[in-house]
Amino acid sequence: MHAITIAKPGGPEELVWSEVPDPVPGEGEVLVEVAASAVNRADVLQRQGFYDPPPGASAYPGLEVSGRVVELGPGVAGWAVGDEVCALLAGGGYAERVVVPAGQLLPVPKGVDLVHAAALPEVVCTVWSNVFQVAHLRPAETLLVHGGSSGIGTMAIQLGKAVGARVVVTAGSAEKLAACQELGADVLVNYREQDFVEAVRELGGADVILDVMGAKYLDRNLDALAVNGRLVVIGMQGGVKGELNLSKLMAKRAAIAATSLRARPLDEKAAIVASVREHVWPLVESGSVRPVVDRVFPMADAAGAHRLMESSAHIGKIVLAR
Amino acid sequence: MHAITIAKPGGPEELVWSEVPDPVPGEGEVLVEVAASAVNRADVLQRQGFYDPPPGASAYPGLEVSGRVVELGPGVAGWAVGDEVCALLAGGGYAERVVVPAGQLLPVPKGVDLVHAAALPEVVCTVWSNVFQVAHLRPAETLLVHGGSSGIGTMAIQLGKAVGARVVVTAGSAEKLAACQELGADVLVNYREQDFVEAVRELGGADVILDVMGAKYLDRNLDALAVNGRLVVIGMQGGVKGELNLSKLMAKRAAIAATSLRARPLDEKAAIVASVREHVWPLVESGSVRPVVDRVFPMADAAGAHRLMESSAHIGKIVLAR
Repeated sequence: MHAITIAKPGGPEELVWSEVPDPVPGEGEVLVEVAASAVNRADVLQRQGFYDPPPGASAYPGLEVSGRVVELGPGVAGWAVGDEVCALLAGGGYAERVVVPAGQLLPVPKGVDLVHAAALPEVVCTVWSNVFQVAHLRPAETLLVHGGSSGIGTMAIQLGKAVGARVVVTAGSAEKLAACQELGADVLVNYREQDFVEAVRELGGADVILDVMGAKYLDRNLDALAVNGRLVVIGMQGGVKGELNLSKLMAKRAAIAATSLRARPLDEKAAIVASVREHVWPLVESGSVRPVVDRVFPMADAAGAHRLMESSAHIGKIVLAR
Repeated sequence: MHAITIAKPGGPEELVWSEVPDPVPGEGEVLVEVAASAVNRADVLQRQGFYDPPPGASAYPGLEVSGRVVELGPGVAGWAVGDEVCALLAGGGYAERVVVPAGQLLPVPKGVDLVHAAALPEVVCTVWSNVFQVAHLRPAETLLVHGGSSGIGTMAIQLGKAVGARVVVTAGSAEKLAACQELGADVLVNYREQDFVEAVRELGGADVILDVMGAKYLDRNLDALAVNGRLVVIGMQGGVKGELNLSKLMAKRAAIAATSLRARPLDEKAAIVASVREHVWPLVESGSVRPVVDRVFPMADAAGAHRLMESSAHIGKIVLAR
C-alpha cells in the first residue's frame, strides 16, 4: 500500500507518498481501508522531529481516519467487514490502510459523509475528555476556548453550547471570530486588540478554560478563572515553562490539568471513545454538532495541507482524502 | 465574655485574653459555649497580620471549637440547647462563646471526649475535602502526605489507610516518623536525609499528593506524581511562586489544585461538613480514626500554644481548653 512517510525531520516537503508494507491486524485490531484522514498540530511536530510516535505506534503520521472495515483481527466483536467507521489513532492515518484497536472505532454518524467523518475523532475525543471528563463543564457555566477557530476550538464551541454553557472564544481575526459566532460562541475576543482577561472578568470569570498556549497564557489564564475554575492545558504553543502563582490558584480554589490523548493506554482511549459514542454521537446525528472542515486536500498532497496548518489561515479541520 | 484578641500584629505575646461583647446568634446560627478550640497555622498568620479574617467573620482567632449549644438563632432545625457539638469556624474559636452557622456543626462523635473533639473539624474537613472530594483518592492508590506528623498529616494518614490506600509520609525527625508509622503510614521519608521523589518513584509514583510547601516542592511534587496523579496544595510554607513545567504535567496527564477552607461560602462549607458527617464520622466512632493531640493548653495561654506551633516540635494538634 501507500502511506505518507517522513523522509527526514523537516519541512512539509519531507512528507512523501511512498510504497510501504501492508499492515496486518493483530488480536483485537481491525484493518480499515482509509477514505480520509485529517491534520493535527501534533502531525506537524512529528514531521519536524519533535514528537515521536509512542512505542508500538505506526511511524507514519495521522491521528484519525475514516473508512471501511476490510478485515477483523482475532477476538474482535461488534464490527463487521464493510462497516463505515471513523477512528482515533496513535499514528498511521495518512495511508491507504491502517490497523486500529477495536476500542478506538466509531461508526460514521448518520448525516455525516465518509470524508468529513475523518475530521471528528481527534477533536471530539479531545474536547469531550478534557472539557467534560476532566473539567466537568456544567450547564450555565462559562467556557473560555483559546483558538476558537481551530479544529479543537470549533468543536469546543459546539459542545459547550450543546450542554448549555456560555462560550467565550479568542481568535486573531474578525473572519475567524465570525466563524466562531456562527457556531454559537457568545463572546468574541480578538486577542490582537483586546485583553481576554478583562473580557472574561466582566462575565464573572471562566469556569473552564481550554488552553493551547501553555506557559505564555498560564498566569493570565489564572487571572481569567472564576472561583472553583478549571484550566485544562492541551497544547503548549506558547512555551512549556511558566511561573505559577499558587496563591492565585488557592484564592480561587482552582485547578490546572494538562493532558494528551496519544500516549494514553488502550483502555483509557477505549473508555473515552465509548463515552463519546454515548454522549456526543447523538448530538452529531441530530445535527446540533458538526465537523467543521476548512479544506480537503488529496492525501498525496499532505505537504500542502501542512503548509495551510502552519499558516494558521484555516478555520476548522484540514482533511486529507484519498 | 472573654476571647483571645490580637492587640496588634506580632508575636505570640500579642494574644491577650480580653473582655469582649457577647456574640448573638443570627438567622440560621447557633451560639456555642466553648469547651475547647485548637490551633491552626492560619491562626499564626492571622496573628502576624498576614491573614485577615474573611468579611463578616469574627476578628478573634480560632477556626474550630467543641462545646455545648446554648442558644438557637431563628430558623435553626436539627440542633437543641445542650447538644455537645464541634464546629468548623471562619474565626472566633479562641473564646468563651462563639456563633456558628448551623451547617458547620457536627455532633461530638461517640468515644471522643469534648475537649479532644475540638481537634477534629479543621483537619477532617480539610483532608476529606481535598484528598477525597478534590483528588478522589481511591483504594490501592498511593497517597503522599508532606508533614505527616502535623495535625493535617496525622488525619491524612488515618483517612488514607481507612480507605485502603498506601500512605507515604515526609517528616523531619525519626520521632515524628515513628508517630506516623504508629498511625499506619506505610513508607516513611525523613526529608532531611532522603529525597522524597526517589522514595516515591520506587513505588511507582504518588497518585495523590497533599502538599503544604507550595512553590518549594512544586517541581519535585510533579516528579513524584504517578500518571494521572493529582497534587493538592493547601499550604505555601515554602513560598508562593514557582516554575511550572507544563510538559511534565502533560506527560503525566496530571492535575494541580489549590484550595482553602476558610474563605468558602457557607453552602460549600455545609456540604463538606455534611459529607464528613456521613463518611468520616462513622470511622471516628468505630475507633479507626482518632484525633491526635500533642498537648492541651489553657485557652488564656494561647501564646504558649502558638509558641509550640511555631517551634514545629509538636505531633498532631495543639488544643486550647477553657
